[in-house]
Amino acid sequence: MDKTDVLIVGGSAGGPVVGITAKRHHKDAKVTVIRKEKPGQVLVPCGLPYILGTVGTPEKNIIPDTLLTGNNIDFIVDEATAIDKERKVVSTATGKSIGYEKLVLAVGGLPIIIPIPGNDLKNVFCAKKDVDYINALLKTLDKVKDVVIIGGGFIGLEFADELKKRGLNVTIVEMLPHCLQLVFDEDFCSVAENKLRERGIDVKTKAQAEAILGKKNVEAVKLSTGEELRADLVFMCIGVRPNTELAQKAGLKIGDTKAIWVDDYGRTTDQDIFAIGDCAEKKSFFTKKPSNLRLASIACTEGRIAGANLFGLKRRNEGVIGSFATIIGDSGVGMAGLTETAAKAAGFEVVASDVKTPDKHPGSIPGATEFRVKLVFERATQQILGGQVCGGGTVGEVVNVLSALIQNRMTADAVATFQYGTHPFFTPSPIPYPIVNGAEVALTKLRS
Amino acid sequence: MDKTDVLIVGGSAGGPVVGITAKRHHKDAKVTVIRKEKPGQVLVPCGLPYILGTVGTPEKNIIPDTLLTGNNIDFIVDEATAIDKERKVVSTATGKSIGYEKLVLAVGGLPIIIPIPGNDLKNVFCAKKDVDYINALLKTLDKVKDVVIIGGGFIGLEFADELKKRGLNVTIVEMLPHCLQLVFDEDFCSVAENKLRERGIDVKTKAQAEAILGKKNVEAVKLSTGEELRADLVFMCIGVRPNTELAQKAGLKIGDTKAIWVDDYGRTTDQDIFAIGDCAEKKSFFTKKPSNLRLASIACTEGRIAGANLFGLKRRNEGVIGSFATIIGDSGVGMAGLTETAAKAAGFEVVASDVKTPDKHPGSIPGATEFRVKLVFERATQQILGGQVCGGGTVGEVVNVLSALIQNRMTADAVATFQYGTHPFFTPSPIPYPIVNGAEVALTKLRS
Repeated sequence: MDKTDVLIVGGSAGGPVVGITAKRHHKDAKVTVIRKEKPGQVLVPCGLPYILGTVGTPEKNIIPDTLLTGNNIDFIVDEATAIDKERKVVSTATGKSIGYEKLVLAVGGLPIIIPIPGNDLKNVFCAKKDVDYINALLKTLDKVKDVVIIGGGFIGLEFADELKKRGLNVTIVEMLPHCLQLVFDEDFCSVAENKLRERGIDVKTKAQAEAILGKKNVEAVKLSTGEELRADLVFMCIGVRPNTELAQKAGLKIGDTKAIWVDDYGRTTDQDIFAIGDCAEKKSFFTKKPSNLRLASIACTEGRIAGANLFGLKRRNEGVIGSFATIIGDSGVGMAGLTETAAKAAGFEVVASDVKTPDKHPGSIPGATEFRVKLVFERATQQILGGQVCGGGTVGEVVNVLSALIQNRMTADAVATFQYGTHPFFTPSPIPYPIVNGAEVALTKLRS
Repeated sequence: MDKTDVLIVGGSAGGPVVGITAKRHHKDAKVTVIRKEKPGQVLVPCGLPYILGTVGTPEKNIIPDTLLTGNNIDFIVDEATAIDKERKVVSTATGKSIGYEKLVLAVGGLPIIIPIPGNDLKNVFCAKKDVDYINALLKTLDKVKDVVIIGGGFIGLEFADELKKRGLNVTIVEMLPHCLQLVFDEDFCSVAENKLRERGIDVKTKAQAEAILGKKNVEAVKLSTGEELRADLVFMCIGVRPNTELAQKAGLKIGDTKAIWVDDYGRTTDQDIFAIGDCAEKKSFFTKKPSNLRLASIACTEGRIAGANLFGLKRRNEGVIGSFATIIGDSGVGMAGLTETAAKAAGFEVVASDVKTPDKHPGSIPGATEFRVKLVFERATQQILGGQVCGGGTVGEVVNVLSALIQNRMTADAVATFQYGTHPFFTPSPIPYPIVNGAEVALTKLRS
C-alpha cells in the first residue's frame, strides 16, 4: 500500500494551494494530490467561459502541473472512491489503496442540471471543467446559431458575453426579476443588464425554463411566460452543488448548505480529514451563518488555512466576505461583502452611499471610464459591510481594496481617512477618490 | 471687513477637499477659499506632466470651480499676504481684510530651482502649476529638440516620458546612483530605468548638473562627470519646498522639514490656524519622525482630517504611509509604505519577499503583463511595512490594496489569508495571487 503524509483529493484551484501551503508549513511532509484529470488537463476554473471566445482553446487555459511537481508534490491520476477513516486509507477507482496521515477533500462542486423535460437532449451543456467536454462544446458551437443560457448569474453572463463574441444569437433566461440579483443591489443589476443588451444579448428575466424542446437535438426552450425561444444549444448556468459523495459515504457530517461541514480550521467531523473549496461548507464573515458563496479565490484562501493547520492549528477561518468581479464587453462590475439588500435581509440597519467619478484624472486622459462605487455601512458600529463597483479595468483590484477595508472592519471614519494613492492613468482623482468620498457621504447620513 | 467662518488659503487639491469636508461636518459654517488662480484656472496637480503629451492643453486638466460653488463654498481670487493672529484677520494683495474663525493654510510647495550658473537662462522651466506658464512652456516645446531633465524622481520621469511622446530627445540627469532611489529599492529602480531606456530616453545617473550653459537661451548642461549635454530646454524636477512665507511672517512654528509644524490634528501652533498638504509638516506612519513625503493624495487626506477637526477634534492623523504609482510607456510601477532600504535605514529588522505572476489569468488572456510584488515585513511584529509593484494598468489600485493592509498593520499571516477576489481579465490567478503568495514566502523566512 502507498503511504503519504498529506493526501489531497482534487486538482483544481484549491488542491494545489493546499498542497503548496502544506509544503511551506511542513516542509518534510510527503504531499500527494490525487485527481481525475490527466497531466496537463486541469482547467483554470475562472477561465472556463473565456475558452469559448477570447482564449480559444482549453489548452491555453490550464493550471500547469509544475505547480505541483515544482513544489515537490506528487500527483496521481486516479479517482478516490472511498475513505476508510479508521485505517486512514483511501481507495481508488483503479484499485489502489493510499494511506494518509491527513486527508484534504478538495473535490469541488458539480454543475446543477435542472430537472426539466428535455434536459438530456443533445446540445444541452453546462459549465463542466473537463477538457474533452469543452472541446466537444467548441465543435458544437461552430455549428449553431441560437443559444439559450439558463441562469443569469455571473457565470451565465460570462458565457453569454463570450458566445456573443463568436457572433452567436444569445438569450439569457433568469427566473428572478434581475440578472445577478443574488450578488448585487437592483440598480447595479440594471447596469449589468443594460451592458448585456448594448452588446446585443437578449435578457429575459422573471422567466423560468419549463422544458427544453426537440427530438434528438435541442430545438427550443419553453418558458413559464409561454414564450418559446429558438435554440440550437442550451447552456445551463444554474451554479454548482457541493460534491459530497465521498464524504457522505465516509460518514462525515454534511452541513445546512449540503456541503461538507467543517469547523473554523477547515476540519471535518474527522480531525484528520479537512475539506476546502466548493465541496466545503462556508459561513458568513458578517453573520457567521452558513453561506452559499463559492468562488475559486475562496477555495484558495481555505486551502491556505487548511494547509497551515494540518499538523496543528495555526489559522482560523473568520468566514467568507465574498469578493469578485466580472466583465461584460469592456465594462467591469464587482463587489465585496454584503449588498444593501443582503445586509438588510440579514437584519442589519444600514446606511449606503453611491458616488461616481472618472477612473482616471483628469477625465480627459484617454480611456477614462465612469467609476461608480456604492458602499454599505452598519449604522450601529459604523463599520463597512460591503461595496459594489462598476467601471473599467481596475474594478477587480478596487474590489480587493474594499475587501481589505471590510476584513479589517474599518469604520466609515477610518475609510474616510484611508491613505490611498493616485495617479492620472491608474486611478480616480485624489479629490473625489470614490471609496473615501463614499465614506464621507455615508458619514453625513450616519450623523443625521 | 468681510467675515467668514472658515477661510482656506489655496485652491489646489487640498484646498477644495478641506472646504468640502468642512461643509460636510459643519454644514452651517460659511466657508471661503482665497486663491491666486482665476476662475477655471486651477490645474489638476498630478496631471501637470500629462498636459505636455497625452492631454495636450492645460484647459483639459482643470479642477472645476463647481467643486467649490456646487458645495456652497465661496471663492475669492486674490493673494493672502499677512495673517493677524490676534485679530484673526487675513490681509490680501488687493488690500482686502478678511476675518475668520478658523484659518486653513493649503498653500502648497514651490518648485526648487537649484542654485547653479545659468539657472536663469531662457528655456529653463520647472513644474509650476500655472496655466500661463504651462502655455508658454508648450509654445517653447514646439520649437525645441533636445531636452535635459534635471532630477530623476517620479515627476522627472513623468515629464521625460511625456516629452518623448512629443518626439523630443530627452535626457534625465540624476545625481544618485539610480532614478527613483528615494522611493524604490534598487532592483525596482532598475526596472524603471530599463523602461525609460526602452522608450529611447537617455538616463545619466551619478551625474550632477553643475551649470546650464548658453548666452540668452539654454544651449547645454554641464555635468559633474565633465560631460556636456546639448539642450534647447532644461526642465528642473528636483521637487518642491514647502511654501511657508505667510506662516513664518505670522510667527507660526516651522518644523524640522522646513514645513509648517502641525500637531496630530492638523493644527499649527495657533489653535485656530490649520495647515495641510505640501506646506505642512508630515510625520511617518511607521516611525512618527518628520517625513518629506509630499503627494496630492496626502494633501487630500490631511484636508479630510483638518476639515473635520475645525470646530472640535474628531480625526487624528496617524502619519503618512506614502502610496503612489507612476507610468513609463504603458508600464506601471508603484509602492506603498517603506521599501526594504528605507525600513532598514529606519532601524527595522525586516524580511522581504519578491514574487511574479501574470496580471490576468490564464496568462493567455490578451494584454496580460507580468506583475511583480515585493513585500517588506518587520521581523519582530511580522507586520507589513511596505510593498512595491510593477506591472500594467492595475498597479495604482494594487498599491491601494497594499496601503489598506499596511494601514491596518496586518501581520504576514493575516495578509496570507487576506480575502481577495479574482477575475481572468482583471487580476492575477487566485492560486499565485501575488500579495498573498508574497506573504506566504515571507512567512517561510520569518519562521526560519
